[in-house]
Amino acid sequence: MKKINGGVTAAAGFEAASCAAQIKYKGRTDMALVFSKAPCTVGGTFTTNVVKAAPVLWDRELVQSGRPAHAVIVNSGIANACTGQEGFGYCRETAEAAAAALDIPADSVLVGSTGVIGMQVPIERIKKGVQMLAEARQATLEAGTDAAKAIMTTDTHKKEIAFTEEIGGVLVTVGGMCKGSGMIHPNMCTMLGYVTTDIAISHEMLQKAVSDVVRDSFNMISVDGDTSTNDTFLVLANGLAGNPVISEEGGDYEKFHAVLKKVCTFLAMEMAGDGEGATKLIESRVLHADTDENARILAKAVITSSLTKAAVYGNDANWGRVLCALGYSGASFDPEKVDLYFAGGDKKILIFTNGSAADYSEEEATEILKGEKVEIISDMHMGEASAVAWGCDLTHEYVSINADYRS
Amino acid sequence: MKKINGGVTAAAGFEAASCAAQIKYKGRTDMALVFSKAPCTVGGTFTTNVVKAAPVLWDRELVQSGRPAHAVIVNSGIANACTGQEGFGYCRETAEAAAAALDIPADSVLVGSTGVIGMQVPIERIKKGVQMLAEARQATLEAGTDAAKAIMTTDTHKKEIAFTEEIGGVLVTVGGMCKGSGMIHPNMCTMLGYVTTDIAISHEMLQKAVSDVVRDSFNMISVDGDTSTNDTFLVLANGLAGNPVISEEGGDYEKFHAVLKKVCTFLAMEMAGDGEGATKLIESRVLHADTDENARILAKAVITSSLTKAAVYGNDANWGRVLCALGYSGASFDPEKVDLYFAGGDKKILIFTNGSAADYSEEEATEILKGEKVEIISDMHMGEASAVAWGCDLTHEYVSINADYRS
Repeated sequence: MKKINGGVTAAAGFEAASCAAQIKYKGRTDMALVFSKAPCTVGGTFTTNVVKAAPVLWDRELVQSGRPAHAVIVNSGIANACTGQEGFGYCRETAEAAAAALDIPADSVLVGSTGVIGMQVPIERIKKGVQMLAEARQATLEAGTDAAKAIMTTDTHKKEIAFTEEIGGVLVTVGGMCKGSGMIHPNMCTMLGYVTTDIAISHEMLQKAVSDVVRDSFNMISVDGDTSTNDTFLVLANGLAGNPVISEEGGDYEKFHAVLKKVCTFLAMEMAGDGEGATKLIESRVLHADTDENARILAKAVITSSLTKAAVYGNDANWGRVLCALGYSGASFDPEKVDLYFAGGDKKILIFTNGSAADYSEEEATEILKGEKVEIISDMHMGEASAVAWGCDLTHEYVSINADYRS
Repeated sequence: MKKINGGVTAAAGFEAASCAAQIKYKGRTDMALVFSKAPCTVGGTFTTNVVKAAPVLWDRELVQSGRPAHAVIVNSGIANACTGQEGFGYCRETAEAAAAALDIPADSVLVGSTGVIGMQVPIERIKKGVQMLAEARQATLEAGTDAAKAIMTTDTHKKEIAFTEEIGGVLVTVGGMCKGSGMIHPNMCTMLGYVTTDIAISHEMLQKAVSDVVRDSFNMISVDGDTSTNDTFLVLANGLAGNPVISEEGGDYEKFHAVLKKVCTFLAMEMAGDGEGATKLIESRVLHADTDENARILAKAVITSSLTKAAVYGNDANWGRVLCALGYSGASFDPEKVDLYFAGGDKKILIFTNGSAADYSEEEATEILKGEKVEIISDMHMGEASAVAWGCDLTHEYVSINADYRS
């Protein structure tokens, strides 16, 4: 597996474009297109929120049908959530405009929206944007990078990555982009993520890989505990790499799974570290839990605790808050058996053992907390399961951003 | 039912005291005593956190045993949580010191601690404090008020209330105090709450009333989603009012239940409104849910949402965040059927109906959000169940307090 430059246009046959359609933001791009002339198999996962945005309902139908897709049209600024039948109608109009401009079927167009909830999208501007995107589309890496920028909301930087791997005797590429900074919480995140690949794979096996990988990557991050109405993660596979089609488990599937996991884990960590107002990435590792499910629950509880997040922001080794979070997570364990470590860079110190504080240096702990990435390791001493979750600190800037989002 | 002055010393036969034992804070009181010469029936509820502080384990044993209690000794500054066997030993030493000073059995002494997790209490200072408390105890209302002040941590004001009611032909008094500002979340809160009453009631019926009332009061508030290791709520009933002992359901039980609920609801709302850094109380009312349990889940989701809390802080009627929170709560419903209102003072406006935004005035919504108490009303149109939850806004000050708690 080799990391290469680029994102959604890294794989063969994919083009991208971005434009400033003036949906809500001024002076920046706010629409993006990902396009493949060759039909793509699609796998996807969506928010578990009962309140689902219109684009989630539109995309879910396409993904579940197993029909091939050719394009994704995304806008930032307005989420098209809580917009009723009118909002869903705009998804259809967007897809129809893209179908006409790109000469593809309307039911092969995926749509995505992110931004403020409750407003209707300005559909005439969206349609004009679709026209601009269709004309501007290119297969260059720059076009992919520009698309990654256009879908940002409160993100401070674009998020993209790509890897190649030899699968089935040919070189396969998997590249992706995502956005997400606030309203980020497992299951899934306001988070839009798009991965393109030239691998040949069946719909069933692609969906299996997507569901599996999302559980350990995007569903293991949290910025604020708020599960969005719009979370969407899609993988488009156009088969142009020419490998024998993957239609069952085996070596080729495992290799693809590993590359996809690498891409998704990178993108997930990027989102957690770029959480609204964040100054640090927090990595919570749970070791030796009794079950995989409990390992995930425990790991997530730590990065979701407001008090732990605020303590990390203040470089305060207030480890009692970590124990407290593990304790209310819902997973059961014996507090007397837990070993707690703080780590960062090449340092790792034991903080809590045998039911009370270890003999650690407060100065060393503070040093670790001052790093850009703070690792909190909880060894439960119960079994063989482990999990990792990623979050960020809770800062004054988080409050500023969210007390004044709509204006 | 009549509101009267006072708190834990309002009922007949109860004395209180406070002192500066220098547990951790300087220049303020940090220990409190509540005492009844007459033996008290005790009902109580405790944190559901797997990591339970030593005083929780100590008190729970006493409450479950059904033995009478005579005294409660509380310290602020250090929580005596995550302190292992050593910490539990200090509970016993505290109780033994109180037993000697007050001439009561050691196994009739309840203890409580609140403050930083992970430090051991300075037991010699605690013992000296117990001596001071025993000597200073008084039945005055001022002594009760001073006790309510001594148990505060990051609270900005003391919290106490008392009511009288005629039950079984005599005047019964129920008064209480609590503390709680951070690490506050249902089940239960870092929250210590103590209610005293002179009613005569059996252990079973008292415990039944306590469990029932806590569910709709203390367990319906949240400041930060962190369920503490120390939450303790105790009701001590010494029987001195002389009513016929309540040992079954009926009119007298119902009257007592109503007074207790009034006391607990007041104290719970006081804690939510005095949440760390809070500038406003948020009241989330859910109407016409399908079940009581879902009504509670939905009501709590709204006051727990960081994004909703930050929007209320910024006077931003970003109602999409409320819908989003209802949607990820875990309760299922039809978003198209929900009516959402914002209310405050004598104003109430419809914000969301028929699946999308209602035609409301943004200025009016902002006015409502500027109030000291903001009501968010979600009418689910599903059934007959309802619930109310209380929380507060998320502010810069919350982050400041918690990024720098231990120093």
